[in-house]
Amino acid sequence: MGDEPGSSGVGGDNAPSSDPKHVISVDAMGGDQGPAVVVKGLARAAQVSPELRFILHGPEAELAPLVAKRKLAGITTIRDAQGVVSMEDKPSYVMRHGKNTSMWSAINSVRARDAGVCVSCGNTGALMAVSMVRLRKLPGVNRPAIAVLWPSSSKQGFNVMLDVGADIRADESDLMQYALMGVSYARNGLGIKRPRVGLLNVGTEEHKGRAELKVAQDLITAQANEANFDYVGFVEGGQIPSNDVDVIVTDGFTGNIALKTGEGTASFISSALRDAFRHTPLSRLAALMAYTSLNRLKKRIDPRRVNGGVFLGLNGTVVKSHGSADATSVAAAIGLAHQLSSSGFTERVAARVAAAGGFADAEDLADKGSTP
Amino acid sequence: MGDEPGSSGVGGDNAPSSDPKHVISVDAMGGDQGPAVVVKGLARAAQVSPELRFILHGPEAELAPLVAKRKLAGITTIRDAQGVVSMEDKPSYVMRHGKNTSMWSAINSVRARDAGVCVSCGNTGALMAVSMVRLRKLPGVNRPAIAVLWPSSSKQGFNVMLDVGADIRADESDLMQYALMGVSYARNGLGIKRPRVGLLNVGTEEHKGRAELKVAQDLITAQANEANFDYVGFVEGGQIPSNDVDVIVTDGFTGNIALKTGEGTASFISSALRDAFRHTPLSRLAALMAYTSLNRLKKRIDPRRVNGGVFLGLNGTVVKSHGSADATSVAAAIGLAHQLSSSGFTERVAARVAAAGGFADAEDLADKGSTP
Repeated sequence: MGDEPGSSGVGGDNAPSSDPKHVISVDAMGGDQGPAVVVKGLARAAQVSPELRFILHGPEAELAPLVAKRKLAGITTIRDAQGVVSMEDKPSYVMRHGKNTSMWSAINSVRARDAGVCVSCGNTGALMAVSMVRLRKLPGVNRPAIAVLWPSSSKQGFNVMLDVGADIRADESDLMQYALMGVSYARNGLGIKRPRVGLLNVGTEEHKGRAELKVAQDLITAQANEANFDYVGFVEGGQIPSNDVDVIVTDGFTGNIALKTGEGTASFISSALRDAFRHTPLSRLAALMAYTSLNRLKKRIDPRRVNGGVFLGLNGTVVKSHGSADATSVAAAIGLAHQLSSSGFTERVAARVAAAGGFADAEDLADKGSTP
Repeated sequence: MGDEPGSSGVGGDNAPSSDPKHVISVDAMGGDQGPAVVVKGLARAAQVSPELRFILHGPEAELAPLVAKRKLAGITTIRDAQGVVSMEDKPSYVMRHGKNTSMWSAINSVRARDAGVCVSCGNTGALMAVSMVRLRKLPGVNRPAIAVLWPSSSKQGFNVMLDVGADIRADESDLMQYALMGVSYARNGLGIKRPRVGLLNVGTEEHKGRAELKVAQDLITAQANEANFDYVGFVEGGQIPSNDVDVIVTDGFTGNIALKTGEGTASFISSALRDAFRHTPLSRLAALMAYTSLNRLKKRIDPRRVNGGVFLGLNGTVVKSHGSADATSVAAAIGLAHQLSSSGFTERVAARVAAAGGFADAEDLADKGSTP
């Protein structure tokens, strides 16, 4: 699809029509920092990738001056939406009463194929609920999943882990689908040609863990050749940030607790580090000298650099950014969204899941061996 | 019980009989570092607490010179046991064929009430299996649990978390029993008079999580007054190292993965910190200046200082030390074991669980309101 006018691109008056794969639908509201930070993030992302176009959702009167200030009017369409989903709103309430919200409107642009992907800093539960209702699950997918990038000692600097909380349950075939979706994500999002997949368990030995994990292991192994990945076996919690594996598969209950435990441990250590350096005048001087080194560390494990949980298994890709996201975070989430969108990620996942489900005619669409 | 000769104390020729609550049964074998490190750890612990007595299990010919070298012969009885449980041995194999091992012998001393508590650096699965077979579960306990101390920003510096892997399943009444056992541990091990208990979940809201967690929440709440603790509600992974809670209750699958994820994150950050400081000559100089501060941090989060997973819910207390434990770790595990033993911990847990199970005659033994 080219950039010719008249294609199903952005419909605004002040923005050119575009190939939807370069169009990001952005929920401007719902983040803790307000829309000004979101728009600032768009400006940063557009500097890196000039082909980007935005559809921005929220109260037009509030957004227009922000867009003008950042000189984004030429590449941004504003879709007026007065309602805002708050962090306290229950997903079930938003599903019933959320039609006028910026979140709903942002998902709708992906549904209408005006944009390739949606980015929101809003309430995760509500975003998943609206995404489920408006985008629907991919054919053959039982449970969608949320995948995150986890700082690691792998060459690419991050591992993929899923599910981190879309659903608190997952049976053996859900886990197998998570493996396929995670492999596609690692390939298209991180550029890993043949990802290594591990199944999270309480030990690496064959006999360890829950019964469904042993069945899942067989199902995943059976897909490895066809879907072009290596299954490395059971992995333990300590291996999540390791170079033993690229994709860590688990149910959303365990994954959510592991994710938050990892984040909690990291911030506990940061704060203990600050205390240690504040202890004496000499240690404060040392801290000053160590400033650059500590900054280098901070960059490496900064969650803002990888600030994008991705919803997988839907007819359209949705990137969830942290609620407390600043402009750097928003720009990172937009960058990830754009990479996934321009690689045709949703279609690849769909083809892969369909192929695993035995829909032979979908196999030729699968992403086996293709480069991102 | 006093220290008078003739009581059911240590039976060796070269050690005085003692009140079993000051006698620690130690498996000298099975740790990665060998028995010399274990004996060195005993010497350190005995320096701190001169009332300590040891029963040391392993090949006598190997242990006697080590004990003599550390001048521990006067307070140590050696029980000859030629067999050693390796890290690779399956628990089921050890249960059938492990009668001649130092691990089996060490548990037997607690069973015979010669010692108040057993300490081993060996294979966790085998240690739990032998403990179950030889000590048996406390009346009313369905599933024993392993509890760990987690570095935290609480006043006492650590929170208690259980189960971290004794069993991969736990239903609502198991979780309630874990809460009671964890409260006793926090009171007798950490000196917290009225511990705050939280139930690990994927969110803090009432409607979040698995069905059994909602039932467990009601069961735990119903015990709070009687057992003298505060139930703070659901807690998330990020709160494990926080000051929001003293005792974190979860099933052994989730708890094991959270524990290993926390440990993995901490060592990932340590290694990233080392890399950051190695980067340039200036950063190496800064690292030198920051040495004391970093050491202060290391001490605070050093797993060796809290090196004791404790098996709860058995007729006798067993402390599992890391397989890679050095002398400092072993001394820490001995110190914890001694504190629990001298506080009458096993009896208190037994009374508390019995009381919750409705055995009214056990209630007067319960540890409600008592000081550690």
